[in-house]
Amino acid sequence: MSKVTTGATTMSLDGYIAGPEESGFDLLFQWYGDGDVEIPSASPDVPPLRVSAASAELLRREWANTGALVVGRRLYDMTNAWGGRHPMNVTTVVLTHQRPDDRPEDDENFVFVTDGIESAVARAREVAGEKDVAVNGGEMARQCLEAGLLDEVGVALVPVILGGGKTLFGELGPVPVLFDGPSTVIDGGGVTHLRYQVRK
Amino acid sequence: MSKVTTGATTMSLDGYIAGPEESGFDLLFQWYGDGDVEIPSASPDVPPLRVSAASAELLRREWANTGALVVGRRLYDMTNAWGGRHPMNVTTVVLTHQRPDDRPEDDENFVFVTDGIESAVARAREVAGEKDVAVNGGEMARQCLEAGLLDEVGVALVPVILGGGKTLFGELGPVPVLFDGPSTVIDGGGVTHLRYQVRK
Repeated sequence: MSKVTTGATTMSLDGYIAGPEESGFDLLFQWYGDGDVEIPSASPDVPPLRVSAASAELLRREWANTGALVVGRRLYDMTNAWGGRHPMNVTTVVLTHQRPDDRPEDDENFVFVTDGIESAVARAREVAGEKDVAVNGGEMARQCLEAGLLDEVGVALVPVILGGGKTLFGELGPVPVLFDGPSTVIDGGGVTHLRYQVRK
Repeated sequence: MSKVTTGATTMSLDGYIAGPEESGFDLLFQWYGDGDVEIPSASPDVPPLRVSAASAELLRREWANTGALVVGRRLYDMTNAWGGRHPMNVTTVVLTHQRPDDRPEDDENFVFVTDGIESAVARAREVAGEKDVAVNGGEMARQCLEAGLLDEVGVALVPVILGGGKTLFGELGPVPVLFDGPSTVIDGGGVTHLRYQVRK
């Protein structure tokens, strides 16, 4: 059964996916570049990852089982559409208020959805078929969680205290939120990979 | 070589050791009671822990190697001095502005220090001898970290989002703070035990 997951969201020990004023990315994403095993990138703008063997084994398995992504318009714009294709080499569903002018038609790289998170996830599920859907960005993850659409939370926990910034689920409404697991605990060397199931 | 550590500090996935308005303790400390292996308590007021086998193996090893604790006066008062002896069965050094009236003398249960964190840790080191010193409470951990006295951070990571409350190191001054490790990653079943080394 395919699932909807946040994938491997890199987070600081104090719960931030970005530091104050968009700082801390060098510290958070150090594990993307300090290993021995290369993971190819399908994006012309994003270099391959170089991660530890333990991290690579997990990412390869999960990437192979991911059939579509859901992202927000902000991430799409900020990355300049990853130069045309997402690094994970899958179709990316972009939730937006308005389709960008330079992409009048959906294609195998990008699909645009303008009528809300449920529709975006449904469209991604169609594209993914038997495979999983990964949701990227705190705001998208929050909307999925609050709409009851999220099955799994994936965290790549990095040993740094950032002291502020953007949290895993952004401005989450009702708390506490409980999870089961972790179903996966992998020591990636300087990063700990954890997978939790949303309790429904 | 003995070290100064926060021990096993229970923390939510979003980085809180207590929820908003002192809530969330039932969720945070569920792992203290939902396992099969009993860990005795030396406190007449605190029941034994019942934790998973994996958690028990770690706690037993660490408790056996802990020679003294450092706590703040707030925790001492809040727990009513644990009824006379800390559950971990070690001497507890209490950092306070003023010695409590009902304890005119230090003894094997409690030692009072009024002249700051460096003095409290030094006193605890004397008591601990070859063993480790554990520092409890966010405010004590913060003071130790900022004074360069902390060697290790121990986290028992629990899969709940609390959305606010008290953070691991309280109102920490300079950020970011970097750690090495984790040196330990143990899946305790619903709790993940992590040990990090303070980068100096």
